[in-house]
Amino acid sequence: MSKGIFITLEGGEGSGKTTMIARLSNYLEERNISYLVTREPGGIEIAEKIRSIILDPEHTAMDARTEALLYAAARRQHLVEKVIPALEEGLIVLCDRFVDSSLAYQGYARGIGVEEIRSINLFATEDITPNVTIYFDVDPEIGFARIAANQEREVNRLDLENRLFHDKVRAGYLKLVENEPERIKMIDASLSPDEVFCSLIANLECVLKDI
Amino acid sequence: MSKGIFITLEGGEGSGKTTMIARLSNYLEERNISYLVTREPGGIEIAEKIRSIILDPEHTAMDARTEALLYAAARRQHLVEKVIPALEEGLIVLCDRFVDSSLAYQGYARGIGVEEIRSINLFATEDITPNVTIYFDVDPEIGFARIAANQEREVNRLDLENRLFHDKVRAGYLKLVENEPERIKMIDASLSPDEVFCSLIANLECVLKDI
Repeated sequence: MSKGIFITLEGGEGSGKTTMIARLSNYLEERNISYLVTREPGGIEIAEKIRSIILDPEHTAMDARTEALLYAAARRQHLVEKVIPALEEGLIVLCDRFVDSSLAYQGYARGIGVEEIRSINLFATEDITPNVTIYFDVDPEIGFARIAANQEREVNRLDLENRLFHDKVRAGYLKLVENEPERIKMIDASLSPDEVFCSLIANLECVLKDI
Repeated sequence: MSKGIFITLEGGEGSGKTTMIARLSNYLEERNISYLVTREPGGIEIAEKIRSIILDPEHTAMDARTEALLYAAARRQHLVEKVIPALEEGLIVLCDRFVDSSLAYQGYARGIGVEEIRSINLFATEDITPNVTIYFDVDPEIGFARIAANQEREVNRLDLENRLFHDKVRAGYLKLVENEPERIKMIDASLSPDEVFCSLIANLECVLKDI
């Protein structure tokens, strides 16, 4: 169906995803490659409203399955309104988090079960899968030290979860990498920004070489 | 798990559900039977916020699968925060719409497919099923004439769908009744209020007789 390339970027809190997406954007611009950077609510009104319900720190009563269904709903609307049209235009789409986030956070870390989460996400995506996914792997301790050092980033409800939870998220991502090594490329995100960026470009070589 | 009785009430727009729920409440009160009347957002803050996204008439871009996931999310939260605690207390829970609404509206009428909708709702409910479901069957033409005559009821986005859609909803409900005659009891809601009410009580006899 689509002529574009769908790239998703995954990782725990403070893994440096945002910085790397900005550098990758510059890299593509310098090469006059058309791209779109987005993350799941993505300025899509309906999806933004759903995200504000998910991230409201007052919603401590939110059930884990409610949260998972809301992520799937926001994902669906963003995919239909923004990602699919961009892919149909032939753009490279860089998406900050996608289904793998729900598998790691809700499926593994919250313990709902990865197959159950995969099932509601299949409903949401109708099996649209990224061409390649980059997983930025970092120990949660390092990730949170980075967040604490960054005054501009607001702390949200998920940041408040305990350390054990984020260890489980990481273990979940590692299982996903193990199960789908062809699609998901893991990068050691504890290295210096330049090292991480070079590794990112090397891992995208296979999908960027035909542009 | 639960000592209570879970009764759901289903039907198209203008089928008279609301009136019948009020009469049934009086009936139970007169017999000193403890009950709870609710409908899916049910005053549960998170679920109310989800419902406001679904019903906002400005959200014309909402994808059918997004809508289905949002209904499942609101259902989950309402079930966990309100229905399950009431059933555990031993109450009769009268719930205005439940999974069957999504099967009829999204599964059949919007054409997503009833098995796909059933799957995300199984995720939401973990297979908690009503003890009995009453379906108030009425021709959509009669239903909309009733709505037009009732000045106090606000017209929402779903009311604006065309007539064909509501015919499909009705056909969907009739298939559900056909597939689960033991659980779903159909009442001819085109009859007079007294006739409909007597039929309702007769159909609930099997679950109310042990109270």
